[in-house]
Amino acid sequence: MKVYELRRAPNARRVRMFLAEKGIEMEYQQVDLGAGENLAPTFLTKNPAGRIPVLELDDGTCLSETLAICRYFEELHPEPNLFGSTALERATIEMWSRFIEFNLWLPTGMAFRHITGFYKDRERVFPEWGEECKQQAQIWFDKLDARLAEVPYIAGERFTIADILAFCTIDFGKVVGLRITPEQPHLQDWHDRVSARSSAQA
Amino acid sequence: MKVYELRRAPNARRVRMFLAEKGIEMEYQQVDLGAGENLAPTFLTKNPAGRIPVLELDDGTCLSETLAICRYFEELHPEPNLFGSTALERATIEMWSRFIEFNLWLPTGMAFRHITGFYKDRERVFPEWGEECKQQAQIWFDKLDARLAEVPYIAGERFTIADILAFCTIDFGKVVGLRITPEQPHLQDWHDRVSARSSAQA
Repeated sequence: MKVYELRRAPNARRVRMFLAEKGIEMEYQQVDLGAGENLAPTFLTKNPAGRIPVLELDDGTCLSETLAICRYFEELHPEPNLFGSTALERATIEMWSRFIEFNLWLPTGMAFRHITGFYKDRERVFPEWGEECKQQAQIWFDKLDARLAEVPYIAGERFTIADILAFCTIDFGKVVGLRITPEQPHLQDWHDRVSARSSAQA
Repeated sequence: MKVYELRRAPNARRVRMFLAEKGIEMEYQQVDLGAGENLAPTFLTKNPAGRIPVLELDDGTCLSETLAICRYFEELHPEPNLFGSTALERATIEMWSRFIEFNLWLPTGMAFRHITGFYKDRERVFPEWGEECKQQAQIWFDKLDARLAEVPYIAGERFTIADILAFCTIDFGKVVGLRITPEQPHLQDWHDRVSARSSAQA
């Protein structure tokens, strides 16, 4: 099997970091998003949404969407557990993962696209909307700081997929000037702890 | 336990439809989003994102996010299975659920907010961005029609959570003029079949 990705893309990093936590070796093939390789017909047969990462199994079956790929490997390699063990823990981790995705990742991604105009050759750009998204993402820096004043990791007492999602998003946010501030010490402490994991280098 | 919701809100319907498929009885408490009841401090202790639906367990623990709530009940009441049985089927259903959420549900929701200005008392409104989102959602009507020419349900051979997500989204899209067209007969046939399920009335 192999993963189609772009090394510097944040979703690709989320999958690499997850696989590193699991100790899973993987073959990677780079896709040139800047050149639109992801929108070519051959790639669209692998993922109709035209996005990376895509996991291609040995029989040619393709799986896309970061969380779907990660959950697939969680089932094949249950340890270390990153999605939760009980029904309540699994739901709690999913809830926090979705908070991160919809309230931090999505606005950060839209800020990137609409402030930098990175894909302006293929989509309309709304700079004011991009600035609005940046502000929405900043609100969640504060919410996460408040959360991490109470618990050591995003979803509770231990490191999970929710931390991987938040960590890769926050690091990516630097491209539009989103940064942890001195007024967010709990978020900074968490970021320092996650940065120290070897998977953060994946 | 009980669910805080707003009866006409699409995410609330997704949870009710899921519980109806499972045959689970539930107590519901209405939250007045128009009056901003979801942004009051007492509600924010239940869900820091200030959104419905929220599931409150008998011990006071709260779970939010539609998919987290549904997955919680999937684990407690495994039959009928709606999230998949094998690792590959679960990942495939999650992939299609995410396609629906990010490419159809999200643009539809943003079109609603930015075209109608429904929440203009509490957020900035960008009408041109709303129109752009409506066009993005329409593209996925075509992609789903192509998908449903090949398989009877969104994620493959049987009805799953992905169908619930898509069905409630498409019905909600009518508020911004998103409708299945005569050029999308496979999508229409699927919509007719899902509409005929008793859970569609939940």
